[in-house]
Amino acid sequence: MINSDKAFELIKKNISAIKKTTIIDIKNSLGMILAEDVKSKINIPPENNSAVDGFAVNYNNYVKSSDCVYEVYSEINAGDYFNEKKINKNHCLKVSTGAHLPKFLDTVIMLEDVEVINKNKIRLPKTVDKKNVRKKGEDIQKGTVVLNKNITLRSQELGMLASINKKKVKVYEKVKVAIISNGNELINPGKVKKNHQIYDSNRFMLMGLLNQASIDVIDEGITKDSYNAIKSKIVKFKRKYNLIVITGGASVGQKDYIIKIIMEIGKLVFSTVSIKPGRPLSFGLIEKKIPVLILPGNPVAAFVTFNIFGNYLINCLYGIRSKEPKFFNVKSNFKMKKKLGREEFLRGKIFIKKNILYVDKYITEGAGILSSVIWSEGLIRLKSNVKTVNINDDLEFIPYEQNQ
Amino acid sequence: MINSDKAFELIKKNISAIKKTTIIDIKNSLGMILAEDVKSKINIPPENNSAVDGFAVNYNNYVKSSDCVYEVYSEINAGDYFNEKKINKNHCLKVSTGAHLPKFLDTVIMLEDVEVINKNKIRLPKTVDKKNVRKKGEDIQKGTVVLNKNITLRSQELGMLASINKKKVKVYEKVKVAIISNGNELINPGKVKKNHQIYDSNRFMLMGLLNQASIDVIDEGITKDSYNAIKSKIVKFKRKYNLIVITGGASVGQKDYIIKIIMEIGKLVFSTVSIKPGRPLSFGLIEKKIPVLILPGNPVAAFVTFNIFGNYLINCLYGIRSKEPKFFNVKSNFKMKKKLGREEFLRGKIFIKKNILYVDKYITEGAGILSSVIWSEGLIRLKSNVKTVNINDDLEFIPYEQNQ
Repeated sequence: MINSDKAFELIKKNISAIKKTTIIDIKNSLGMILAEDVKSKINIPPENNSAVDGFAVNYNNYVKSSDCVYEVYSEINAGDYFNEKKINKNHCLKVSTGAHLPKFLDTVIMLEDVEVINKNKIRLPKTVDKKNVRKKGEDIQKGTVVLNKNITLRSQELGMLASINKKKVKVYEKVKVAIISNGNELINPGKVKKNHQIYDSNRFMLMGLLNQASIDVIDEGITKDSYNAIKSKIVKFKRKYNLIVITGGASVGQKDYIIKIIMEIGKLVFSTVSIKPGRPLSFGLIEKKIPVLILPGNPVAAFVTFNIFGNYLINCLYGIRSKEPKFFNVKSNFKMKKKLGREEFLRGKIFIKKNILYVDKYITEGAGILSSVIWSEGLIRLKSNVKTVNINDDLEFIPYEQNQ
Repeated sequence: MINSDKAFELIKKNISAIKKTTIIDIKNSLGMILAEDVKSKINIPPENNSAVDGFAVNYNNYVKSSDCVYEVYSEINAGDYFNEKKINKNHCLKVSTGAHLPKFLDTVIMLEDVEVINKNKIRLPKTVDKKNVRKKGEDIQKGTVVLNKNITLRSQELGMLASINKKKVKVYEKVKVAIISNGNELINPGKVKKNHQIYDSNRFMLMGLLNQASIDVIDEGITKDSYNAIKSKIVKFKRKYNLIVITGGASVGQKDYIIKIIMEIGKLVFSTVSIKPGRPLSFGLIEKKIPVLILPGNPVAAFVTFNIFGNYLINCLYGIRSKEPKFFNVKSNFKMKKKLGREEFLRGKIFIKKNILYVDKYITEGAGILSSVIWSEGLIRLKSNVKTVNINDDLEFIPYEQNQ
């Protein structure tokens, strides 16, 4: 049985990043993975402009002049363009923040530092600084790479793309993910069930976890616990999907089918990981390179293992290999004993006490209850060498990613 | 000028929660806000079942019997139903995890603790515990409230709804949010611009920030800096939207228009907050109860203030008032001096060094550059009473919420 570090390593090693790209409008690009380095074709600001509301003068003229009284030649607001080539030495322009400044006006004196004599006449202070001008290209110089390949496009990247007039952008195609639930006891919600049957929840949970802009989820329904049923379903997929996620088959008898089939038609990379919950987690490849992730049928174990390993696997498919789950430091608000040698993921909820972030764990033991993930906001990781947890111990907490 | 605590308080006080509800399929409910308490109409598990792979016996019979050899009467797997009323005293059932157990079988002995004599005969250990049975209703008892009103439906809640056969669910209607950019200098990406004009980025960024399942964003375009243009646009909205977000008009001249109009046709709650960036942030109401949030035109300030106050306001619209931004504790990896009396939000990026989470701040000063939010993963909050930050100081960090 391998540990979680080894599982991450084996996932990374066995996943080939998807290289297919497509060009889309930036309005539809949120959450997609950028497939090009983006260079700006323009300067930002496009011309010198004023950083404040005030009066613009030429600094050298001001220094040489003996008089601080200036005539307001004109008023320029953001969006206006001042296209005269010069103004008189004792003239200034009234400008608003963002207003275009011709090159010969290199200093803006803030409104509050100026004495207004009348509508057309002002008095500047005795000394002024050569400042308050935003220079052409100061934020972004034409030709600069503003966004690098392989990043996820968030709202701020959309803003950046809009600001440099990049309307269309090259991104990686969506990852196609098939989800299957495995088990004779399972039935779809909405159907009338026999009393001992169980409504399948894992596919609905996975549809939520996989609801990311860069993913197309395809619901492949429930498969019976039968060698032939599972094999014929998987074989039919061929290269239709970039990833197959199967839940269920955690018990020895059931699981053998899936593992056996993967070994027959592909390659089994690992089965069982030394973690709790989620020990039966398995991973393999079919059709030479299509990953199959086999999550435990227990909904909590499926949820935890997908959060930790499923998201990582998808990042590997995009070649974003550095994006391992990021843990925050929190203080323990509980005590417990733990089995040595096995990593544990507890369901946790955080709260602030005297400016310090504490974490509580779900009280009920046993992984069979979805209530623990509903109550919680993230996972507490206890490393394999931890034997006891005491109040105020430093713990690692990873908030759930929510992909609405 | 108010501080951020006062701004939160005033937002909370002036927002009336939306009460309109709608009934939708759970497949479309991810990210929506639940508008009912959900009770389970079924027991989970629906019947007693086995927690392990093994052999099921009646505990009292086992204790009374002198012989540990049992005949395997039948094999029951998950999904099967055993409908006989009793079995012989020296008989047992082979069961897999999740298999239905009739009431008279109250003990399962794990596969690995049993000696298999032949296909039909096994020897149990000398002593066994009465355990490994998951009791009917153990996870969820019929009639229990499993989800409370006013929570956001995440993937785990979808799983819970599916598991109790709740196919349709009552949620609050989506919040309709209009976004407007204000400024004569602005032009839409894709258009040919005059050299001094600026491509509008704020609406694209806000479309990303507002891309939440529970929100309908309506792009109301760019409005010129004119009293009449702004007023006629806002007045036309009437009660079409639940929230209006305007960016721009941060300079004195521009801002006056919007503030003046809000004061004329509604109520101005606050203008300017003692934070950096984002000082010009303003908030008011029109049509008695429709909030208008006026963000600074500077893209970084707009981004920061929306992250902190915009998301909070939307939570108030849903009546989720407790959901103030949650800060994590991190250690500073930088030094700086800060002006007293003003709260600051720096753009930060976290990294782990010797198991401790550190934060770096963006190096370039000045808020005029979207690069800082692109580089960063969240905000560092420096409270108003902070004067200096040193290496290893404890800091508060709030990761950006990403709504892909």
